Amino acid sequence: MKVLFAARAALWDSWAPALRRACPEMDLHREGDPASFDALIYAPGFPENGEVLDFTPFSRARIVQSLWAGVEQIVTNPTLTQPLCRMVDPGLARGMAEYCAGWAMRAHLRMDSFAQDGQWRHEIVPPLAEQRPVTILGMGELGRACAGALTALGFRVTGWSQSGRPVPGVEVLPGAALNQALGRAEILICLLPDTPQTRNLLDAERLALLPKGATLINAGRGSLIDDDALLAALERDRPGHAVLDVFRHEPLPAEHPFWAHPRVTVTPHIAAATRPETAAAIAAENLRRAMRDEPLLYLVDRERGY
Amino acid sequence: MKVLFAARAALWDSWAPALRRACPEMDLHREGDPASFDALIYAPGFPENGEVLDFTPFSRARIVQSLWAGVEQIVTNPTLTQPLCRMVDPGLARGMAEYCAGWAMRAHLRMDSFAQDGQWRHEIVPPLAEQRPVTILGMGELGRACAGALTALGFRVTGWSQSGRPVPGVEVLPGAALNQALGRAEILICLLPDTPQTRNLLDAERLALLPKGATLINAGRGSLIDDDALLAALERDRPGHAVLDVFRHEPLPAEHPFWAHPRVTVTPHIAAATRPETAAAIAAENLRRAMRDEPLLYLVDRERGY
Repeated sequence: MKVLFAARAALWDSWAPALRRACPEMDLHREGDPASFDALIYAPGFPENGEVLDFTPFSRARIVQSLWAGVEQIVTNPTLTQPLCRMVDPGLARGMAEYCAGWAMRAHLRMDSFAQDGQWRHEIVPPLAEQRPVTILGMGELGRACAGALTALGFRVTGWSQSGRPVPGVEVLPGAALNQALGRAEILICLLPDTPQTRNLLDAERLALLPKGATLINAGRGSLIDDDALLAALERDRPGHAVLDVFRHEPLPAEHPFWAHPRVTVTPHIAAATRPETAAAIAAENLRRAMRDEPLLYLVDRERGY
Repeated sequence: MKVLFAARAALWDSWAPALRRACPEMDLHREGDPASFDALIYAPGFPENGEVLDFTPFSRARIVQSLWAGVEQIVTNPTLTQPLCRMVDPGLARGMAEYCAGWAMRAHLRMDSFAQDGQWRHEIVPPLAEQRPVTILGMGELGRACAGALTALGFRVTGWSQSGRPVPGVEVLPGAALNQALGRAEILICLLPDTPQTRNLLDAERLALLPKGATLINAGRGSLIDDDALLAALERDRPGHAVLDVFRHEPLPAEHPFWAHPRVTVTPHIAAATRPETAAAIAAENLRRAMRDEPLLYLVDRERGY
């Protein structure tokens, strides 16, 4: 099985050993005749000269396996006719759940109100998690992992997804009930993918529905939020604070107002780091399935966009 | 049942309604003839003139129910011959578990390394919680609640207690294995009570056993730690950071070096806030037991000191 590692050179050292361990029969290359490859392992940022990758010459490839969960950068590429699979890394979902639970706890416990200034503010006793409603937008693999961690900590979790498909232990509201899901969200966690339907989902009107002082955590995609609407909404304390891990342009430009805003915390797209050890096993399984013409895991629906 | 509310006046407004709701037959007073009371509900800071409370005249009292978990301020009072009961508030244990889990997550996720300075530090990917060893000193009610929250988040939890009594899902090391418990603690959580045996347990020698860069969270009692040894240990990065909620003198004096230390986070003894709603039900149950001469809940062992 001849495979092209279609990702930035900087990723080679961490990924190649893990991929080869997970799939010893894989003949992994960084370049070669496109028509000779049985499969591609892909991550955004390739090719490094900034050109859009032309998938046409990969006539033999039976699968394009993304190393990332988000595939919006190639799903619209018209040359991509090969089956495209998202990465659903079990380590990524656990890491994402930890990120969301950790930042939710920071907000819940009002950690930032204890300045190291010699003032003994011991009247600040937060309610218990069971009295703190959290809403998660997006109840896919990541949303469900996050709901599990938050439920275990005692939070009252509401999920929201287009389908409203039930998830054990969580009340899941369907598409039409978005306003209700936002209205109860003292902590709002966004884990939606970037699609035409989710773009600018959180605009001025919807942000205004949040409870006063709510915390917004966006670990989905930057495009979910209208940046200017968020900056204006922070002035009105709905939300009172935003923890943002994803942005319309990454890295977030140094001059972007989010960086210096006292009510915004920027993290550099680290919530959902794919971890080579756990992800390589998924890629290996999918490549083997492609070679055997078996159903692929996490095959992208081109219409839905994920 | 005539009961004296032997606590600071400031506590009356939040406690009296909850106590009366939980125990309508309680005749609750803030003062009166000591010999007339059947029971005392007690919290440190009473009487407010700073005198040591003389329990001798409360000849009729069948129980002194503390509103706090820690009773070191009265357990050594020689006039106290009535049965003394600690508060084991289910809300308190949950709040403590939330505090410890929240601050553990903050350390685990290296939240403080993401300064809002325009630098996109996206190489910082923390390990998963399952790769992060946490040690809890003290496996009583609070330690077990904390272990449950941390285990649910995926952390590898080691407990340590004098007895080494087993706890489901956690490896509990006994008294003699303290050094081993400390040696593996990337996050160390102290939930021990203040007793002659635990005083200065974390001295220079024991702190030096911690892994480099470890985080110490003390939500037990300030006396567990030798303050000067901790300040010196922070210079050697063992621990790399300390989150302290309890102190030898509270409120922590404004001039104490902990306040301004860049590697110390001070919180004002809020980890284990007793919440009137949940605690009043426990106090009511114990007062009824005392009136009926039934075994009391959480009776303090005067020798052990808790």
